[in-house]
Amino acid sequence: MSKNPVLTEIVERYKPIWALDHVASLLEWDMETYMPTGASKPRGFAQAQIALIKQQRVLELAGLVSKAEKLGDLNDFEKGMLRVVKRELNYYMKVPPKLLEDLRRTSTEATVVWREARRKSDFPMFKGYLEKTVDLKKQEAEKLGYKGHPYNALLDLFEEELTTNDVDRVFSPLVLNLKRILNKVLSEGKFPNKHPLESLTYDEAAMRRVNVEVLKLLGMPESTFRMDVSTHPFTTSMSIEDVRITTRYEGKDFKESLYSTIHESGHAIYELQVDTSLEYTPLPKASSTAVHESQSRFWENFIGRSREFTELAYPTLKANLPFVSGYSEDEVYRYFNSVKPSPIRVDADELTYNFHIVVRYELEKKLIGGEIEVSDAPALWNDLMQKYVGIRPEDDAHGVLQDVHWSGGGFGYFPTYSLGNVIAGMVFHRIKKDMDTKDIVRRGEMGRIKAWLKEKIHSYGATYSPKELQKRLFGEEYNPQWLVNYLEEKYTA
Amino acid sequence: MSKNPVLTEIVERYKPIWALDHVASLLEWDMETYMPTGASKPRGFAQAQIALIKQQRVLELAGLVSKAEKLGDLNDFEKGMLRVVKRELNYYMKVPPKLLEDLRRTSTEATVVWREARRKSDFPMFKGYLEKTVDLKKQEAEKLGYKGHPYNALLDLFEEELTTNDVDRVFSPLVLNLKRILNKVLSEGKFPNKHPLESLTYDEAAMRRVNVEVLKLLGMPESTFRMDVSTHPFTTSMSIEDVRITTRYEGKDFKESLYSTIHESGHAIYELQVDTSLEYTPLPKASSTAVHESQSRFWENFIGRSREFTELAYPTLKANLPFVSGYSEDEVYRYFNSVKPSPIRVDADELTYNFHIVVRYELEKKLIGGEIEVSDAPALWNDLMQKYVGIRPEDDAHGVLQDVHWSGGGFGYFPTYSLGNVIAGMVFHRIKKDMDTKDIVRRGEMGRIKAWLKEKIHSYGATYSPKELQKRLFGEEYNPQWLVNYLEEKYTA
Repeated sequence: MSKNPVLTEIVERYKPIWALDHVASLLEWDMETYMPTGASKPRGFAQAQIALIKQQRVLELAGLVSKAEKLGDLNDFEKGMLRVVKRELNYYMKVPPKLLEDLRRTSTEATVVWREARRKSDFPMFKGYLEKTVDLKKQEAEKLGYKGHPYNALLDLFEEELTTNDVDRVFSPLVLNLKRILNKVLSEGKFPNKHPLESLTYDEAAMRRVNVEVLKLLGMPESTFRMDVSTHPFTTSMSIEDVRITTRYEGKDFKESLYSTIHESGHAIYELQVDTSLEYTPLPKASSTAVHESQSRFWENFIGRSREFTELAYPTLKANLPFVSGYSEDEVYRYFNSVKPSPIRVDADELTYNFHIVVRYELEKKLIGGEIEVSDAPALWNDLMQKYVGIRPEDDAHGVLQDVHWSGGGFGYFPTYSLGNVIAGMVFHRIKKDMDTKDIVRRGEMGRIKAWLKEKIHSYGATYSPKELQKRLFGEEYNPQWLVNYLEEKYTA
Repeated sequence: MSKNPVLTEIVERYKPIWALDHVASLLEWDMETYMPTGASKPRGFAQAQIALIKQQRVLELAGLVSKAEKLGDLNDFEKGMLRVVKRELNYYMKVPPKLLEDLRRTSTEATVVWREARRKSDFPMFKGYLEKTVDLKKQEAEKLGYKGHPYNALLDLFEEELTTNDVDRVFSPLVLNLKRILNKVLSEGKFPNKHPLESLTYDEAAMRRVNVEVLKLLGMPESTFRMDVSTHPFTTSMSIEDVRITTRYEGKDFKESLYSTIHESGHAIYELQVDTSLEYTPLPKASSTAVHESQSRFWENFIGRSREFTELAYPTLKANLPFVSGYSEDEVYRYFNSVKPSPIRVDADELTYNFHIVVRYELEKKLIGGEIEVSDAPALWNDLMQKYVGIRPEDDAHGVLQDVHWSGGGFGYFPTYSLGNVIAGMVFHRIKKDMDTKDIVRRGEMGRIKAWLKEKIHSYGATYSPKELQKRLFGEEYNPQWLVNYLEEKYTA
């Protein structure tokens, strides 16, 4: 906390902004879970109004922030708070209201059109909106300013200080190593590329019971956490005492629902373990998108897809999904970790997932940098898929149209998925110096892992930038070697 | 709509206030339905911050409202809008922030203590908070100003321009007539004071199916309406396209769940039928608390507890609740309309309900007027119950501690329940001039009744004050005779 009167006033003046973020989260959560389908228009109106009120309140902090910048000798909380507020203020000061409004309206309209275009695999239908979006994002990058590539301005919105140099430095060795491991796995056949459990259907109520039991295995709290259903699983935090995930039930291939639940729980554990002294300040949130993703991936893959977790969950699976009894723990483990190059990112396994990200990263960089036109995107997508995944999508619905991100203006987001995997690898490497995670998972003592993550990462919220946080904990930033080592051992040892 | 630039600017400046009301409704709805139990504190914090932001935005309208007051020749929309905004502004201008904050904090704390005090039937435990609340409400009345009794200032908060003179004029003949009808019913035994169906237990899923079918009978829309579960059923409107009710399932005496559902649907129909041109303005809401209650009571009692509706719903009841088959339509109708003086307001039947309200009204008037002390309340409550209902509560949990309203500061609210019944009687009398409701209900053509209510009441939202609305539609205000006539015919004909 702070004793400085200027910083204390910033904390005080941030309280309504915290409340506006709280309601923005609830508006979003409700829209994806329980809101009546006919209520989109007034909901969109309310969201836009709340965003404008927030913008005004943030801009009102400009004078205080100027004063605070002249202060020396700040503690970590004070530095972090000032850093986060300055980032918000910087955005609203540089991006004019007209551009903000254009971005917002285009996003709403483009998302509707994209949904239809994907359904029909009709890229020309979406092309105009994608052009408009790319143009607006280029304008946003110019307004925000950047060193080097204009894409850096957009990367920074999701991952503070991240540049294309950072990403290139990570992705080059990652791709080479993953290709090597993948080829070995595919030739050895230790993990299947298709498993009979994928096609077995389940009862939704039974699968819900499995997920509820898994939440217990993960030690998710009952009074400050809940799980609902939505088409696209997500996590939202209204406050440190109110974190919610959603999962999905598609009726077959039960690992999809199971690992959605574990993935979102990983995000939720982060939000739930922020130090409560940060509540109502600018800091009770993740350090960055990639750090957030590292936590979901850590629980989903490093813990959740381990041999030991399979063992721990096996009795629950058998008790609720009768067909599991026909398969040994080993078989279920193989099912959980099947490896198969496929055209769709969200269906990808641990090994091929990052190739999908590289495809998007290269495309986005070229689009924002003006090296290619939107009309070039479908063909280039397919070429890059061929190059990295070894697959040519059968149509644009399975290619360039598959993700929602671009219609929402989320250029710069994709790289954080792979960087999340990279950081999860660093966490896994680091935590093993302090404890035998295999043994702990086998015993179901998740509380010990959670306590470690809380102490090293979660409790700070956004006090440290992602690079600072990594330097403090690992002594290095975004090092892909640990992810590679983990995958190599898991898939080829 | 308005072409005047001053009024147009008020409409424009009201949009964020509309959005703040939208989120306040969602925060409340979520708190009562899905919010994790441990999240009360941050939720309360967010609600208080949003209320402060709203207050500031309303106060910023003062200059425009002053200008608008000098304008002549306004249309009904303009007059209504100005009236509603002036009421909000008047409240925030007269009640100082310190008092508002005291009211809010006392309400939060008192509600927690009240819950515990009621559980233990321990009035002394609650007494200090009730004294504090009464004191704050007296201060609020003084700040707001009033003619005649100070309680008038509080009545006006729920029912515009309502005075104790109005209430006395309504309640005196109402009590006399209801006593007469009640005595006749109790001596004749045409309606039971206890029915075997009360004690039969139901399966919650089956009862939910009944309620869903009843929503269909009422023609509730699927894309702009939903029903959830909460301890205390309520209706909330986020927008004209997003209206939600809750109901409750206590496992036996199925009419409780059924009539909760119909009651709240009555409120919801009002909110859903406001003219969409009023969206985002100050007007898409009910004219008053009593007019709102008249709509819920109209559907719950005048329609829902009718012989014809019983007939309409009977097949659904039999299909889902097997035990209903043992009872004829006549018996189910008698069960729906059993009459029994009882100590608890929320369990009361159509005839004795208003006596409970009179007890509260007389007590509140004396407390706010300073004629009695809070310490006198339990004994006076019991005396008044004896006088009006003919029952002496066995303890304070069944007496003065039973309602949540006082802990929340809702002095002045109770009379609107009975006034709602009175207005429902007026609606019933009036609509029968235009259609044969019995025949229409028997045929299940609720759309015709809804269309009438929309045209005469709902479409206007808060354009007209409750007195204006009544004068326009009935040529008179709060006339209890039509409620008496309806009850007399139903229970003694």
